[in-house]
Amino acid sequence: MSLKSRIVGTAKRQVKQTLRPVLQRAMAPARTAVPASHWGLEHRPGQGLCLEGVPLKDLVARHGSPLHVVHLAALRRNAERFLAVPPGRAGGCEVYYSYKTNPVPGVLSYLHGLGVGAEVISAYEMWLALKLGVAPERIVYNGPVKSEASVREAISRGIQLLAANHAEELAVFSRLAAEVGRRPRVAVRVSTNSGWSAQFGTPIAGGAALRAYQQACASKHLDVVGLHAHRGETIRTEGDLTGFVESVLAFTDTLHQELGLDLEVLDLGGSLCTPTVEHIAERDWRLNLTFFRDVPAPDPAASLSIERYVALVVEMVESHYARQGRKRPRIFLEPGRAMTGDTQLLLGRVHALKAAEDRAYAVLDAGINHAECVRNEYHQLFHVDRPDAPAEQVYTVVGPICTPGDTLYHAKRLPELSVGDTLAIMDAGAYFVPFATSFSYPQPAILALDGGKEQLLRRAETFDDQVALDAPAAATATASKPEAA
Amino acid sequence: MSLKSRIVGTAKRQVKQTLRPVLQRAMAPARTAVPASHWGLEHRPGQGLCLEGVPLKDLVARHGSPLHVVHLAALRRNAERFLAVPPGRAGGCEVYYSYKTNPVPGVLSYLHGLGVGAEVISAYEMWLALKLGVAPERIVYNGPVKSEASVREAISRGIQLLAANHAEELAVFSRLAAEVGRRPRVAVRVSTNSGWSAQFGTPIAGGAALRAYQQACASKHLDVVGLHAHRGETIRTEGDLTGFVESVLAFTDTLHQELGLDLEVLDLGGSLCTPTVEHIAERDWRLNLTFFRDVPAPDPAASLSIERYVALVVEMVESHYARQGRKRPRIFLEPGRAMTGDTQLLLGRVHALKAAEDRAYAVLDAGINHAECVRNEYHQLFHVDRPDAPAEQVYTVVGPICTPGDTLYHAKRLPELSVGDTLAIMDAGAYFVPFATSFSYPQPAILALDGGKEQLLRRAETFDDQVALDAPAAATATASKPEAA
Repeated sequence: MSLKSRIVGTAKRQVKQTLRPVLQRAMAPARTAVPASHWGLEHRPGQGLCLEGVPLKDLVARHGSPLHVVHLAALRRNAERFLAVPPGRAGGCEVYYSYKTNPVPGVLSYLHGLGVGAEVISAYEMWLALKLGVAPERIVYNGPVKSEASVREAISRGIQLLAANHAEELAVFSRLAAEVGRRPRVAVRVSTNSGWSAQFGTPIAGGAALRAYQQACASKHLDVVGLHAHRGETIRTEGDLTGFVESVLAFTDTLHQELGLDLEVLDLGGSLCTPTVEHIAERDWRLNLTFFRDVPAPDPAASLSIERYVALVVEMVESHYARQGRKRPRIFLEPGRAMTGDTQLLLGRVHALKAAEDRAYAVLDAGINHAECVRNEYHQLFHVDRPDAPAEQVYTVVGPICTPGDTLYHAKRLPELSVGDTLAIMDAGAYFVPFATSFSYPQPAILALDGGKEQLLRRAETFDDQVALDAPAAATATASKPEAA
Repeated sequence: MSLKSRIVGTAKRQVKQTLRPVLQRAMAPARTAVPASHWGLEHRPGQGLCLEGVPLKDLVARHGSPLHVVHLAALRRNAERFLAVPPGRAGGCEVYYSYKTNPVPGVLSYLHGLGVGAEVISAYEMWLALKLGVAPERIVYNGPVKSEASVREAISRGIQLLAANHAEELAVFSRLAAEVGRRPRVAVRVSTNSGWSAQFGTPIAGGAALRAYQQACASKHLDVVGLHAHRGETIRTEGDLTGFVESVLAFTDTLHQELGLDLEVLDLGGSLCTPTVEHIAERDWRLNLTFFRDVPAPDPAASLSIERYVALVVEMVESHYARQGRKRPRIFLEPGRAMTGDTQLLLGRVHALKAAEDRAYAVLDAGINHAECVRNEYHQLFHVDRPDAPAEQVYTVVGPICTPGDTLYHAKRLPELSVGDTLAIMDAGAYFVPFATSFSYPQPAILALDGGKEQLLRRAETFDDQVALDAPAAATATASKPEAA
């Protein structure tokens, strides 16, 4: 290391340390935390944070750490909001939960029991829906990679909707439908100028989507009943939603005018936000990393609620069709994160504390192996044991994996931590489980709480599970007996 | 979408399309591919790419797609290079493979059979090493999260080296050693100014590492025999290595002078590169994304070879100690990616092709669920069926997951693709398997080739495996029979 780089390094460090408190005060965000009561958590003196009267720390003591906890009452409330008919309307929406968001059979079954269908994107997910007893007419099959076997099964079972991710897929559907001898109910996924498209959907702009519909309608093997669109980019405001729905509605007019097609099903996909989760802006991330400025917490009240989202969708579709004197189509929604995101939390324990020059590291037993999303999304973190203690200490909260990339919070103000303390990472019900890995540590159990009653949905992975698919020969190879070098 | 943003969008698109060919020519990188022969692959007319005489496409036909293929001869060659005594030296290094890099029991057992020990970073990995029959004196235990049970076991079994990730861990070791009644062979992980440190290691700078050694030596329960250092940042050049080793050696002098400590073991960690893999620089990534300029391929010849790396390490350590008339310590190495990175490849198939305005999307059956690293590292991609066909078409190569983040190659020049074609993603032997998820699709099988003979190391995950840990009650819940909305 040269003298020059040492001087530059020292100077940088000095500037950071001098600016840090100034910036923290001057640029303190208005909101740095959402209260625990938002999630139905309650602080009971001596017991720490409790859910439905059950101390969270007791759950970890009984079921091990880390641990996912599913709050079934919250799940029911979200599902009921999606399924409710908005005030003053004759009908609402049909709801298909996006399996990929949180593919836990216990969670899925619970949703199905409430009247929610299955939105699946792979052969595995279709298999799972059928295994969970979902009726074929309650299944929508999307996604860019559908195995031919699964498409054949979808057709022969007569699922509700089979959506062509790209126009090229229509030829595959047509060929397989001819083989099976049954006409599937088909939709074409289209992309608007709102949100992302990339490998998904056929663009309305330029006429590609219209040509795809012409192609679909020309096949006598396909029953073209629907349109599928998915914004992709998170819907957080009314503006995010209305721009997207307007584009889709305009295209349904084109289909009506050009092809005389009256859609039975309008599938508007998902993308509604979890109100307490937000992508961390680059600037906020850098300010946190460099100057330990708190990451601003999203304001749940500023987010489109499920009720308002459903009401807006129904209102827009109904009034659009009413103006034309046409019957409005059935509206399908495919919520993912808005349904399950805020109904699950991940508990972990402080395994070690490491002092460093300008901060302390809190090393948890859960990291990006179980909570990958926390790397770039705001997720509220609670001290389970002492939630009300003043958050005066700055910690870099890291996981157990041997890489500096395993950092969940770069600079997080928390009550003073001790080894063994329990922390709760909130909003773990979307994309935590599907992005989980078994990197050096087994995956955690998933427990449901239902009126204070505990129900194990998924047991923790064991060491034996981690090698269950490996050839026994490999797993019992002879020991090496090398000479010391 | 406002008129203004539409005009800006169109203008941007025009500029991109005009500049694209100009920039591609003007800024064409010197090297855009490494030849297949580098990996021992051979093109046989009519059979496509073959490994040890076996056509790769036949492997997929027999074992399914996607499929990991481990090349045991390459693994043996790498291991032998690490274990070899450099010319003119009396001794070489002792080698402990970094389990986390590619934790496949069949691969690990093969390495152990060649005389390579185990570097483990978790209770699971220590359990696995013992299960695979590795002798305790061939195990090094590192990492920031060691369960107390696993530390107790490590102590009572008498493993080779127990390294304190942070100074605070020494007190835990000391307490548990007193309980067990056996003195473990301990090292302290230190961090230098070269490479990353963060939650890992106690810094030499400022005296913290020296104080940690004072603390360790003061405990009568610990046998302080070693020093552990790990650069973290990839070692690609001699300069990367020598700066790091010099800092460590200087600190061993401090330990000798200040504490009279003569280390028996100098553990220099891992971090040596895979010559054909390189982090994609931000600029190259942006040029590829925007202007379809090829990502430059790394030059394997410009990378520090295993032989040269080992020779340099031994030379530096030996001459340092020889100058002082002291006996040189045993040298431990913990290679990960340099050992297994280039000994494994991932085969996948083109499931669909989607035409788009300015490119075509190739949708594979393998994406970031199995090949997360490809998002930000250069990995050579081969067309298995027609490797020599001119690469004239630009594809965005994506995986099966429903997110635009599932993009492996933004703009990759390839021979014209057809649905069903097989592609090979090279250098899949480091961090592909540990970062793999079961996101909507089961995980692939892992097959070894040994002199043309096929050996299944790990079978593919099945749908049933994906719900094996779930409560049976949840998995057989009653079907929902909701009314249509």
